[in-house]
Amino acid sequence: MAKINDNFLKLPGSYLFANIAHKVTTYKEEHPDAKVIKLGIGDVTQPLPQASIEAMHGAIEDLATKERFHGYGPEQGYKFLQDTIIKNDYNPLGIDLDSTEVFVNDGAKSDTGNIGDILAVDNKVGVTDPIYPVYIDSNVMGGRSGDLQKNGMWSNIVYTPCSADNHFIPQLPKEKVDIMYLCYPNNPTGTTLTKAQLKTWVDWALANDVLIMFDSAYEAYITEKDVPHSIYEIEGAKKCAIEFRSFSKTAGFTGVRCGYTVVPKELMATAANGEKVALNGIWNRRQCTKFNGASYITQRGAEATYSEAGKKQVRKTIDFYMGNAKIMKQELEAVGLTTFGGVNAPYVWVKTPRGMTSWEFFDEMLHQANVVGTPGAGFGPSGEGYYRLSAFGERENCLEAMERIKNWLKK
Amino acid sequence: MAKINDNFLKLPGSYLFANIAHKVTTYKEEHPDAKVIKLGIGDVTQPLPQASIEAMHGAIEDLATKERFHGYGPEQGYKFLQDTIIKNDYNPLGIDLDSTEVFVNDGAKSDTGNIGDILAVDNKVGVTDPIYPVYIDSNVMGGRSGDLQKNGMWSNIVYTPCSADNHFIPQLPKEKVDIMYLCYPNNPTGTTLTKAQLKTWVDWALANDVLIMFDSAYEAYITEKDVPHSIYEIEGAKKCAIEFRSFSKTAGFTGVRCGYTVVPKELMATAANGEKVALNGIWNRRQCTKFNGASYITQRGAEATYSEAGKKQVRKTIDFYMGNAKIMKQELEAVGLTTFGGVNAPYVWVKTPRGMTSWEFFDEMLHQANVVGTPGAGFGPSGEGYYRLSAFGERENCLEAMERIKNWLKK
Repeated sequence: MAKINDNFLKLPGSYLFANIAHKVTTYKEEHPDAKVIKLGIGDVTQPLPQASIEAMHGAIEDLATKERFHGYGPEQGYKFLQDTIIKNDYNPLGIDLDSTEVFVNDGAKSDTGNIGDILAVDNKVGVTDPIYPVYIDSNVMGGRSGDLQKNGMWSNIVYTPCSADNHFIPQLPKEKVDIMYLCYPNNPTGTTLTKAQLKTWVDWALANDVLIMFDSAYEAYITEKDVPHSIYEIEGAKKCAIEFRSFSKTAGFTGVRCGYTVVPKELMATAANGEKVALNGIWNRRQCTKFNGASYITQRGAEATYSEAGKKQVRKTIDFYMGNAKIMKQELEAVGLTTFGGVNAPYVWVKTPRGMTSWEFFDEMLHQANVVGTPGAGFGPSGEGYYRLSAFGERENCLEAMERIKNWLKK
Repeated sequence: MAKINDNFLKLPGSYLFANIAHKVTTYKEEHPDAKVIKLGIGDVTQPLPQASIEAMHGAIEDLATKERFHGYGPEQGYKFLQDTIIKNDYNPLGIDLDSTEVFVNDGAKSDTGNIGDILAVDNKVGVTDPIYPVYIDSNVMGGRSGDLQKNGMWSNIVYTPCSADNHFIPQLPKEKVDIMYLCYPNNPTGTTLTKAQLKTWVDWALANDVLIMFDSAYEAYITEKDVPHSIYEIEGAKKCAIEFRSFSKTAGFTGVRCGYTVVPKELMATAANGEKVALNGIWNRRQCTKFNGASYITQRGAEATYSEAGKKQVRKTIDFYMGNAKIMKQELEAVGLTTFGGVNAPYVWVKTPRGMTSWEFFDEMLHQANVVGTPGAGFGPSGEGYYRLSAFGERENCLEAMERIKNWLKK
């Protein structure tokens, strides 16, 4: 009989956001009149940039004609989009890339998971903690995790804790690590690394032959000067890092699905015989075999976010969300809560008061203020005692939620 | 240092269609005036159904408003599409499915490759030969292939040959197989199995605990009554088969990217401890972790192919392509070539004349008739001595190509 990949059975039964949804549904059933405000999942709420709307209408009209019909596109993405990405996202940072180093995809979640396909099972994985769950879960499926221990950590994964105790600056792992996941601006904590701090990681990776998976899905939210937008701003990073980007949070594409992965040509890893192999070619082969390119319509929409009009529209929406973040930080701190993040990222990371666990805080906030966020413990053991609030909501919901939280905590 | 998945190094350097493209480019450089007609890659050429065009314009307008904005959709696809698929593609065949058994994706290629994620490495894989290359290549990457031998076969994969010798009806494997890939209507041969013939496979799978991967991406091209559109038309198939479907060839979505995978709830496989595990839940977990749903716009476009207008438009385009297939078969047979397929599938599978190899036939046809198809050997050892011509072209190109082939072969 066909045998399953047993690693799947190691994963805990239910997923963080499914748990939350279940608790909210139960509460609503018991309190049908309650108006619950959700600041939980990091999903956007504002319409797409008008430039993308227009470009996608145009792309659909292309597909309505024989002359401008587009069938199978390149698995790596259309060159018009690859070149536009390089010109706008990298060249201004002083980074030069070839179009064959940029792989357009259907969203960063897919590739941060799928990238494991090209790497051996016996690589040792390191993560900062707390962390976006996909990095770990996809490595559990891929057989690199070992077993889940009582402390919430996987036995074969190296965790570097990030909390207020170390100002959310992760220490370099002392153990051997082959692959290290870094996400900056960070999901869930909303904190960042300065250029000097990220340089420490790049230097360590180069010295120890570590492959860094750098997720910069939130780079468009950076407001401070000394915070790098791309890991390739750091010298030598092309020799040690893959970078994942997304249009989801930049341009509201969570439902449209587009992102990209940069695999520099000079980035190498080792074959079993000790030879060095360029990851670019291997990832290209993976994509050609198991992916057929992102939608032509989507790619035209993504391209339009870089037009003059598109850039302004994107900036306006990001500023709007960051306005929410500012209000949230101010109001929460006004009632005595300690907050982190929210300056270069659309997430505010709240220290739970009075020694509450993150799930206790979740339950109380749901019941007392009818506001839903995400318990920090859901992102890993070091998230315990913290709580994530997303700035992606409507302004009125944001204000109302803060009012309710204040009233609850003043009691 | 990070180690690569060494299985990638087993794959031959260049991919079939890249090889073909290289030969064509070289020929064109040497003969700049030649007008080469491509009947090679199975890509569509006709515009999308107008119903899909309109639905996608509407979906984009949804995303332009706050009120009708759609962010992250369900990883499994929107229920509006799942239900429409079941109602139109399955219920009329007497097949009942629950929406949780239908997983909408960004195209069948992705899932026929990704499905390997949920299965153990030590499963024995069987394929009919010749075959769509993704099934084997993704299993090479997944570590299930063994090594490529001089005869063009992988040492750990079981091949069941399909050729004129056995009327393209594959024999049941004599060796033990855990996972069997079947594609009907077949790519590349264009041949089909009758219900009774497919029942032999389902009965064998049930008796031998084999998991069948059934790719029915071309089912919309079936014209004969006794040819099953879905494997679930065969009793018991829900206990042994996953079915892959696509809007690419049905509705011209090769550039829009949408398909779906059916994983029935009663379909089980074995864990290492011998327990039976439902694949539906495991695939769901895979999709929730490594996929974020297909584009909302795409899913509205796919839904519209099932409207009254959409169905008529889809049918018209398919009839057009099948008109090409009919012409091709007639004309090729008129010059003495033996052809297969082309009746329930948009591919005509031509026996090469005078004992030519498929690549010899490719080269001669390119040089003598300036027509490009796909050498059968590119699809596996049993494809040697055959040649695939696609019916997805323009009518005038199809007629012109047949005229040129006739003139060449009459010489």
